[in-house]
Amino acid sequence: MPDVVADLIEALGPDVVRTGDAVPQRNCADWSGVPPVRPRAVVLARSVVDVAAAVRVCHAHGQPIVPQGGLTGLVGGAAPGGDEVALSLERMTGIEEIDVDSATMTVLAGTPLEVAQEAAAAAGFTLGIDLGARGSCSVGGNVSTNAGGVNVLRFGMARASVRGLEVVLADGTVVTGLNKMLKNNAGYDWTQLFVGSEGTLGIVTRVVLALHPAQPEVTTAFAVVPDFVAALIALRRLQSRLAGQLVAFEAMWPDFIDFSARVCKAHPPIDPGAGVALIVEAASAAAAGGDRPLETALADLVEDGIVTDAVIAKSVDERRRIWAVREAPPAEYPVHVPGFIPYDVSIPLGAFDTAVGELRAALSDRWPGIMALFYGHVADSNLHLVAHLPGVAEQPRAAVNEVVYAVVARHGGSISAEHGIGRQKRPYLALSRSPEEIALMRRIKDALDPTGILNPGRVL
Amino acid sequence: MPDVVADLIEALGPDVVRTGDAVPQRNCADWSGVPPVRPRAVVLARSVVDVAAAVRVCHAHGQPIVPQGGLTGLVGGAAPGGDEVALSLERMTGIEEIDVDSATMTVLAGTPLEVAQEAAAAAGFTLGIDLGARGSCSVGGNVSTNAGGVNVLRFGMARASVRGLEVVLADGTVVTGLNKMLKNNAGYDWTQLFVGSEGTLGIVTRVVLALHPAQPEVTTAFAVVPDFVAALIALRRLQSRLAGQLVAFEAMWPDFIDFSARVCKAHPPIDPGAGVALIVEAASAAAAGGDRPLETALADLVEDGIVTDAVIAKSVDERRRIWAVREAPPAEYPVHVPGFIPYDVSIPLGAFDTAVGELRAALSDRWPGIMALFYGHVADSNLHLVAHLPGVAEQPRAAVNEVVYAVVARHGGSISAEHGIGRQKRPYLALSRSPEEIALMRRIKDALDPTGILNPGRVL
Repeated sequence: MPDVVADLIEALGPDVVRTGDAVPQRNCADWSGVPPVRPRAVVLARSVVDVAAAVRVCHAHGQPIVPQGGLTGLVGGAAPGGDEVALSLERMTGIEEIDVDSATMTVLAGTPLEVAQEAAAAAGFTLGIDLGARGSCSVGGNVSTNAGGVNVLRFGMARASVRGLEVVLADGTVVTGLNKMLKNNAGYDWTQLFVGSEGTLGIVTRVVLALHPAQPEVTTAFAVVPDFVAALIALRRLQSRLAGQLVAFEAMWPDFIDFSARVCKAHPPIDPGAGVALIVEAASAAAAGGDRPLETALADLVEDGIVTDAVIAKSVDERRRIWAVREAPPAEYPVHVPGFIPYDVSIPLGAFDTAVGELRAALSDRWPGIMALFYGHVADSNLHLVAHLPGVAEQPRAAVNEVVYAVVARHGGSISAEHGIGRQKRPYLALSRSPEEIALMRRIKDALDPTGILNPGRVL
Repeated sequence: MPDVVADLIEALGPDVVRTGDAVPQRNCADWSGVPPVRPRAVVLARSVVDVAAAVRVCHAHGQPIVPQGGLTGLVGGAAPGGDEVALSLERMTGIEEIDVDSATMTVLAGTPLEVAQEAAAAAGFTLGIDLGARGSCSVGGNVSTNAGGVNVLRFGMARASVRGLEVVLADGTVVTGLNKMLKNNAGYDWTQLFVGSEGTLGIVTRVVLALHPAQPEVTTAFAVVPDFVAALIALRRLQSRLAGQLVAFEAMWPDFIDFSARVCKAHPPIDPGAGVALIVEAASAAAAGGDRPLETALADLVEDGIVTDAVIAKSVDERRRIWAVREAPPAEYPVHVPGFIPYDVSIPLGAFDTAVGELRAALSDRWPGIMALFYGHVADSNLHLVAHLPGVAEQPRAAVNEVVYAVVARHGGSISAEHGIGRQKRPYLALSRSPEEIALMRRIKDALDPTGILNPGRVL
């Protein structure tokens, strides 16, 4: 019997199927830090026909497949194993249609997010998905991982932007449901299964995305509240006052602000002291008199004693400097705290402050002197935490995981807010999901991929 | 072997399990017009424990179950067959928690939608789901059918309001995932499978709903555009100007307006003539000077010649009279056009106008003198059409279905925008879904309900 690689080359040719030294370095790892591994072969599919052909061959051989998009994942979902065939969609790029009437865009799954964003903008629309890796990540990857990012407060997770999908199932069947309509209750919305299942149930090849009207100019503010309780009150008030127009609500705790200012030289426009610092953005056009709704809303919050102080960015440069306080540390961790241990968790907002306190105490008790920086997309329940033991070459990653995830689980939180489970969080899934939930996931997996060839060892 | 009814009574007692004349009339039909049928038994479950016990007994006997909520469905999904056990959730009512910090509400599935709406309002929030049957329909039914309704433009279908679920599977297993967090990518979001699957995959017993900030007062306008092309331009401009605040955008064609005015005596505030009439609503607070954003936006559209004329409701009574133009006909069809044939379809907006023209022509060609009223939630791609042959006792329902659904299918539309498939639309599912899509739905059904006891004959 010819082996799977020979059959793949036979079916698709040596330009599409690369092996040995012809496997591009790019396809050997993702952004998770998993060491690069050369897969058995890489299939550089040119079309859905190629994807289906490759999956059919692998299915016949029981050959595990790891689907790859922009390879920007942070949990090892797309990092290949040495016995896997990597199925890359990087060549399948392009906007197939922008339907102005339906306000939808149909794109090939390998299209970089930024390309899709720019095409939407050129047509007078805004795409609902945005994240830091926009230049590298692909739309298919965004959908497969139900990406979060910086627009979730306003437009929801990637799931909320998906109107239709084309997927290739584990046996090579192509299922096409390129729905453009907001309302379509004709049978199960099967597309939902493939959003966020990280390539373990099928391979997304085409996506219909909902588009939003082009956004009015954004107003950005840096504000300080005395504590997290005040932050939640401010959030609720702003959501009410600026209904549907609040874009960002980021919180940063003192240790994070200190790191940002002292280490990264990104100084906040107001010193938050022991308070919680906020970055708030709203997309609302100025009123006739030139008043910006966010400005008046914040002024009222200051008057009511909920917000200690606030400043509005008056220029592009001031906006940039406000965001640098939040964005400089993640960009500079590799330089200043190599080996740092990052977390992306969700905690119900009512337990958020308690959980932050418990996390800080638990980490300091166990590792006196540990650096623990807290910040997050608070309106989304999303906490980012970075831990680092100064001067320690081998960071105690597994032990810190245990401590952090135990606190998250105790408060009914999620061990993965937006990054997914992949390979790296798989051991901890049971902390956020009950045995019945995991059994149900397994039943879905077995129904759609009975031989288990799609991204094995990820999620479940 | 004791029969299933005896086992149900043994497990749950005669107060919970009703048979024969003790079966309430209410549980013998839904709002679809399917003739009432007395089921083998009705289980009036008091709790999820009762639901699980009943399902376990039925599972052991291979006994078909029809889950029932508020029984307001329009496609026969909850209307029992004589060989089925009806499993009603009507006793399982109550708001279990409103979490102000998370902006979520946890409710038992049998809770009437209106009760949930009022509880949300009392806590300073708005629920994202609203529909005409709010007083009778249940939250579990809304979720199981992915209800649409009047808030879809702003808050999405029911799916968008679901954060967490508890469901009972076909074997009686209770799966609980009462997530409250906006971001939770810890494994598959299995809850998505149960939204809109009409009780064929599991029975929803508890729901966590996302809440929105209380809405500012709504501004309501009645406007006229010369044709549908202008309606789409107006829609896009309003969505852009009133980003996130447009609540309703209803269109009504001349025949509908004529019926409303002449038959129902609900007169429009402006005569639309041969144009398309619109009802537009926006939830946006008046600016400092008292200007309402919708008013200024419409004034600009009139100035640009896109909108022919528009009037803003200046009082609650004026608002009521504007909405009566839209709402009087559906309420009065049973009186004025008994046996009328209603449709709830979606058509991609770019093809909407063409499809309306084709539908009108096809119906008139086949049945000269037929009444065909067109109206719909246009921004959602949702067309409502009511057909009626004057003076005909037995309306040619099946033949009209063929004509209407053929046009819908030709334009890539959906045979069910918001009502679902149930029993009545099942013969037409293949007009909106490909064989691969239906095979995938069937595979999901077989995986979750291998013996086919959950709402058989509905959807698939």
